[in-house]
Amino acid sequence: MSTWLLPENIADVLPSEARKIEELRRALLDRFRAYGYEMVMPPLLEYLESLLTSGGSDLNLRTFKLVDQLSGRTLGLRADTTPQVARIDAHLLNRQGVTRLCYAGSVLHTRPRGLYATREQIQVGAEIYGHAGLEADAEIQQLALDALRLAGLQSVRLDLCHAGVLQALFARDPAAAALGESLYEVLAGKDVARLAELTRGLADPVADALRALPALYGDASVLDEARRRLPQWPEITRALDDLGFLAAQVEAADVTVDLADLRGYAYHSGVMFSAYVSGVPNAVARGGRYDHVGQAYGRARPATGFSLDLREVARISPMEARSSAILAPWKHDEGLRASVAALRDAGEVVIQALPGHEHDLDEFACDRVLVERDGAWIVEPRRVGLAPADTRA
Amino acid sequence: MSTWLLPENIADVLPSEARKIEELRRALLDRFRAYGYEMVMPPLLEYLESLLTSGGSDLNLRTFKLVDQLSGRTLGLRADTTPQVARIDAHLLNRQGVTRLCYAGSVLHTRPRGLYATREQIQVGAEIYGHAGLEADAEIQQLALDALRLAGLQSVRLDLCHAGVLQALFARDPAAAALGESLYEVLAGKDVARLAELTRGLADPVADALRALPALYGDASVLDEARRRLPQWPEITRALDDLGFLAAQVEAADVTVDLADLRGYAYHSGVMFSAYVSGVPNAVARGGRYDHVGQAYGRARPATGFSLDLREVARISPMEARSSAILAPWKHDEGLRASVAALRDAGEVVIQALPGHEHDLDEFACDRVLVERDGAWIVEPRRVGLAPADTRA
Repeated sequence: MSTWLLPENIADVLPSEARKIEELRRALLDRFRAYGYEMVMPPLLEYLESLLTSGGSDLNLRTFKLVDQLSGRTLGLRADTTPQVARIDAHLLNRQGVTRLCYAGSVLHTRPRGLYATREQIQVGAEIYGHAGLEADAEIQQLALDALRLAGLQSVRLDLCHAGVLQALFARDPAAAALGESLYEVLAGKDVARLAELTRGLADPVADALRALPALYGDASVLDEARRRLPQWPEITRALDDLGFLAAQVEAADVTVDLADLRGYAYHSGVMFSAYVSGVPNAVARGGRYDHVGQAYGRARPATGFSLDLREVARISPMEARSSAILAPWKHDEGLRASVAALRDAGEVVIQALPGHEHDLDEFACDRVLVERDGAWIVEPRRVGLAPADTRA
Repeated sequence: MSTWLLPENIADVLPSEARKIEELRRALLDRFRAYGYEMVMPPLLEYLESLLTSGGSDLNLRTFKLVDQLSGRTLGLRADTTPQVARIDAHLLNRQGVTRLCYAGSVLHTRPRGLYATREQIQVGAEIYGHAGLEADAEIQQLALDALRLAGLQSVRLDLCHAGVLQALFARDPAAAALGESLYEVLAGKDVARLAELTRGLADPVADALRALPALYGDASVLDEARRRLPQWPEITRALDDLGFLAAQVEAADVTVDLADLRGYAYHSGVMFSAYVSGVPNAVARGGRYDHVGQAYGRARPATGFSLDLREVARISPMEARSSAILAPWKHDEGLRASVAALRDAGEVVIQALPGHEHDLDEFACDRVLVERDGAWIVEPRRVGLAPADTRA
C-alpha cells in the first residue's frame, strides 16, 4: 500500500483550512479568557483507568489502548478531555472556590461517529467547577453561544434537556432503571413503537411518563405541557423550573426543549444542552452539568461545561482567512534586510524569493512587492505575472 | 493505584505554564507566517510504515504502536512531524515551486530522552521544500534564531555541522561505512579512546580524518583547520565552504562549528545545526537539510527545516504571562450585562462572581472591580480583600 495513504476517517489539514482553524482557535480561547477561564493542557496519554472513570462503555469502546513500556500498564489515548480537566480541578488545583478552566486539543476515537466523521477531533471546551447554581449553567450556555457567534454561525438553536427527569423516574421504579441503556437509545431516537414495547411491563405513572417524553419537544411552552403530563414530584418540578429559568436567560438564539434527548448522559446530572446550526444535522456544541465527574478523583465538585469540535465548526464557518503578502528579492543588502525585518515586525507577511524561484511563487497571494527605488526599499502594488526583478525600474 | 497518578514522564500543564506556552505558540506561528510559512496540521495517528519511512531504528523504538480497528493494521502515534510534512509536500500539495510549511503539535515518545524529559513534546517547526541552495538554510537558521529571540532567550549559540563530511569518508571507504551507527555514537560523544579502537582497521586518509573530527570543534576558524587536516576532496571542500557561507550569514548569535556532532543524522543530508542557550545542557532547537525525506512518498525534493519543543522553550523562557482582570457581580441588570460584554470585546478579562462565591475568587489577579455608581457601571481599582458587593457605594 502506498505510504501516503492515511487511515480511514483520518485526514491532513492543509494550509487554507489550517489557517482558519488557527484563527478560530485563538478567537475562542481569547473569548474564554475574557470570561475568566484559565487554560490547561492535560496529556494525550494517561493510564486507561484514569480516562475511563466516568464515561461508560461507549467511551471505553472509543478509546485507543496501548502499552506503556515504562510501567507495563495499559495507556489510553484520550477520547474526551472533560474527565482529565475534572482530575486537574480535583487533585492538582484543589481550590475551595469557583474554578473556571478551558482547553483546546486533539481527541482520538477508535471508530468514527458516522461515515464521514473524523476520528481526530480538535476538542475545545470550557468548564466551571464549584458552583451548583444555575448561574454557572447560564454562563456556560452564553459562552457556547458566544463561541459560535465568533465563528460567524447564524441562526443557532439551543436545545435544552435535563438528566433529572429520567433519573426521577428511575429512582421511583427499579424496573424502569433496569432497562438502562436501551431505554436511552430508544428515547434519543424517538422510536415510539419500541418505546411502547419496552415499557409494557412497567407500572404507571412511570410507564406513562416515559411514553410521554418523545412528544415533549418544541419551544419553551413544552415545559407547561410537561408539567401537566409528567408526575408532579419535587425532582421533576425542579428540573422543569431549571429549564424554564435557563430558557429565559438565553438571548442570542432560538431555544427548544427536548426532554427525550439524553445523549452523552454517561456523566451528566442536571441541565444539558446541544447547539444546532441550520443545515447541519449534528449538534455543533454540547454541554451540561456533570456534578459527579470528579468523584473518582476524590472530590465530587459541582461542575458544568461545554465543548465543540473546532475542525467541524471551522468547516461550517463562513469566515475566510485573510491572505496577503509582500514579495521581496533575495540578495545581500543591508537596506533590504532591515526593510524586510521592519515589515515583518509590523505584522506583514514578507516572502523572499529564493534565487531561481522568482517565477514560481504559488504559496501566498502576493499583492505587493518590495522594490529598490533610488537606493530606498519601498512597497509597491504588484503587477500580476511579474516577479520582483521585472518590476525594478 | 490512584486514578490521578499520571504515567512517568507525562504531565499536566497547569494554567500559568499553559498561558505562557499559548502566548509563545502564537508568537512563533505569527513569525513563521511573517516569513511566508503556511501552517499544516498532519494527524496524530498514521499507518506505521508512513511514519517510519525515513527515521531509522531510533524513531521506530520511540514510536507508540496500536491497532486500527477499521483496517486491522498497525498505526503509529507520531514521534516526529517532519516525515508527515514531507508527505504533505510530496503528495498533497505537489507544487513545482518553493513551498514553505510550518506546524505546531504534540509528538509522543515511548521512552523519554532523559530522566526528567517529557514523553509528550509540543513540536513546533518550519520547513522549506524545493530549493537546494544555501539561501534556504540561511533563512531557516535566521527563523530559528528569530523564534528563540521572541521567547526572550539571550546569548544563543548556533552550532553548525555537515552530514556531507562523514558521507564523503564513507563513500571512499566501505569498511568505514560498515561501522555505521556505532561510529556516529562515538563521534557524537567525542569518545576519542573508543574512536581510536573502532578505526584501527581502517586505512588512511579515512582513518586519519575520522580521528581528527572530534577535535574539529570551536569557532568558525575551525573550518581553516579542517581544510588542512581533512582530505581535499571536492565533497569535503564543498561542505566546508557551505559551513563558511552560513557562519558568515548568522548575525544574532555566536557561531560554533562541530564536525563530529551528527545526532539526528537519520534523514539529514547537508548542513545541520543546533541552537544552545547558556545554562541549558541540551539543544533548544535543531534543524538541517534532509533532501531525501520525500523519496518514500515519490518525490525527493530539496528540503531544509528546524524544530523545537515548545514546552521546553517556554520552561526556560524568562517571559511572564500577563494577568489582570476585572471582578464583576452577578445580577440581572441590562446595564451590567452590556458593560461586561463591552469590556470583554475590548480585550479585558471580566469575571462574574457567582452568587455565594464573592469571597473566594482565587483564580485570576483581579486588580479592578466593576461597580454601579449613580446608575452607571464603571471600572474602579479594587481595594484588596474586598469583594464587589463591599465596594458598592
